[in-house]
Amino acid sequence: MRVNKKKYQSIWTDGENRIFIIDQTLLPYSFRELELKTADDVTKAISLMQVRGAPLIGVTAAFGIYLASCEDNSDENLNAAKMALIKTRPTAINLKWAVEQMVAKLLKLESSKRNKAAFDLAKEFEEKDILINQKIGNNGFEVIKKIYEKKKDTVNILTHCNAGWLATVDRGTATAPVYKARDMGIPLHVWVDETRPRNQGSQLTAWELKNEEIDHTIIPDNTGGHLMQRQMVDVVITGSDRTTYTGDVCNKIGTYLKALAAFDNNVPFYVALPTSTIDWNIDDGNNIIIEERDEDEIHYIRGLDDNSEIVNLRITPEGSKGSNFAFDVTPSKLVAGLITENGICLPNENDIKKTNA
Amino acid sequence: MRVNKKKYQSIWTDGENRIFIIDQTLLPYSFRELELKTADDVTKAISLMQVRGAPLIGVTAAFGIYLASCEDNSDENLNAAKMALIKTRPTAINLKWAVEQMVAKLLKLESSKRNKAAFDLAKEFEEKDILINQKIGNNGFEVIKKIYEKKKDTVNILTHCNAGWLATVDRGTATAPVYKARDMGIPLHVWVDETRPRNQGSQLTAWELKNEEIDHTIIPDNTGGHLMQRQMVDVVITGSDRTTYTGDVCNKIGTYLKALAAFDNNVPFYVALPTSTIDWNIDDGNNIIIEERDEDEIHYIRGLDDNSEIVNLRITPEGSKGSNFAFDVTPSKLVAGLITENGICLPNENDIKKTNA
Repeated sequence: MRVNKKKYQSIWTDGENRIFIIDQTLLPYSFRELELKTADDVTKAISLMQVRGAPLIGVTAAFGIYLASCEDNSDENLNAAKMALIKTRPTAINLKWAVEQMVAKLLKLESSKRNKAAFDLAKEFEEKDILINQKIGNNGFEVIKKIYEKKKDTVNILTHCNAGWLATVDRGTATAPVYKARDMGIPLHVWVDETRPRNQGSQLTAWELKNEEIDHTIIPDNTGGHLMQRQMVDVVITGSDRTTYTGDVCNKIGTYLKALAAFDNNVPFYVALPTSTIDWNIDDGNNIIIEERDEDEIHYIRGLDDNSEIVNLRITPEGSKGSNFAFDVTPSKLVAGLITENGICLPNENDIKKTNA
Repeated sequence: MRVNKKKYQSIWTDGENRIFIIDQTLLPYSFRELELKTADDVTKAISLMQVRGAPLIGVTAAFGIYLASCEDNSDENLNAAKMALIKTRPTAINLKWAVEQMVAKLLKLESSKRNKAAFDLAKEFEEKDILINQKIGNNGFEVIKKIYEKKKDTVNILTHCNAGWLATVDRGTATAPVYKARDMGIPLHVWVDETRPRNQGSQLTAWELKNEEIDHTIIPDNTGGHLMQRQMVDVVITGSDRTTYTGDVCNKIGTYLKALAAFDNNVPFYVALPTSTIDWNIDDGNNIIIEERDEDEIHYIRGLDDNSEIVNLRITPEGSKGSNFAFDVTPSKLVAGLITENGICLPNENDIKKTNA
């Protein structure tokens, strides 16, 4: 997608197999490209959320295995790199899936072939992600089109967190249908949940939409319910970090509250996801262990001061504790449909299995 | 209640009938007493939210009428002051109620008696508010006590925004039962919703609870649903800016989302309110006009920098719009009970009328 009218991906390689990302911790205040030179750079980039979003984390981790292989392609080191990467973000199922799949393949190869194979496999993940998001966009577009054909006026879409192109390699998951609908000439407006405590909505999704010149409005996470009560939202589309094969959706903390409000107001609540984020081992979302992050993410906030310097502020009283769960689980009963690269399916075991057949 | 172990009210007068408030826009970073010298000081203090919270706004507005009376106690000026005060915060029903009641009484008096009568009436509002909150505390205490008797372990209470003593003259509405339960020796822990965009939860409620040495944890507004799903909340208690006589509760934006989550997880959702905030003219909360505040409250945030200076930061991309509804309406179907000074009632017309008989 575009940044200041120039085309970008969120991760890319150059002719010399060097790997670059956008440092997302500086957005929207500063746009900086960052080279990932070592496997350690990659685990840090994921831990510090310089890259985030389940699909992008998966692709970045794959390049992490490539870099680990270049450093020392022994079975031992590849396995160690795999474990280190999996530990960075415990909820992202497709990170685990990507690096396990990749290391399993590499371990079957002799040492001399591992580095090139690792690069090729990581590039495959990258290219596959782009293709998947295109398909998610095409499938989700049908949802927006139907609403537009009935309403014949601007379609108001609410989204939570950033499941945009910055969370993937390109186009995004929840935003892919939005970009497709824009390309197809449907008038759109996006309500962007701020998404505390890390503000990925106001800092990333809004920045994306601004660069793509899509009409949007930032709202506090508290606002969406009221907008739905007053018929100001036509559809909710979010991403997912992990979806059980029974249709429970683990996504950024607060998603569940929007799903409840959507259900209460007959607003369809869709989740856009690559099938790689489906967890085939858990049948009940309540059993997903939820990552708890540092409470300083609640006590401090980053922004621009009057001199356009990036500054950290304390925004809570000294002596008050904070609790920082990163995700919650939206039960399948609240989900209208899952928009995958293989079509839209209902959030139940039968339908999910069929779509992935 | 206490600030650094010293007793305070949120508004008070001295022996010379001078009126003082705590400038709540500086909390929790700086504690400053502020004298309100003119009626204009009062409208500004309410508009700028140096005082906020429906009950405190009502009492402060009453002192505003007193100051207006001292400046010029003609019918014309008292009516003008009344209108100016009502315009400051359109949702706060008891502000309207307080100043209308007061001006109606003053207009019946001859000029020479108006100033003293205005002061006495305002003091009456102040003292009545303290008494009301004590009663709300006693009534709400029964709810907490029952939970404790069953659970025999720390009672986890979730609250949204600040319906604490800073929102009233003393003790608060939603917090009155908490303070009472603490006084009665029940072990408590309070989940404090940050309450974007103005952070009254993290900046005021947490600060109150810290000063009262009550165990509490600040959470993003996104978190409460997850906590309820995982049985980490025993009861929700919020305040109300306006409640219809049919039991729909207008309160700080985001309250509705917590009520939905409470309902979905069988967590009782209580609203603590003085009966003065009941609107006897509206039977459907959907008809309440919701105040929209300046979108800069979303774009900027105030906090403490490394040098302990209070600083404003921009936290959204330039060029992105914001939308800032201040309240939402929780339909009566989600409310377990209304805790008033006259007892706890169900959120329906019959029960509400009985409690106020």
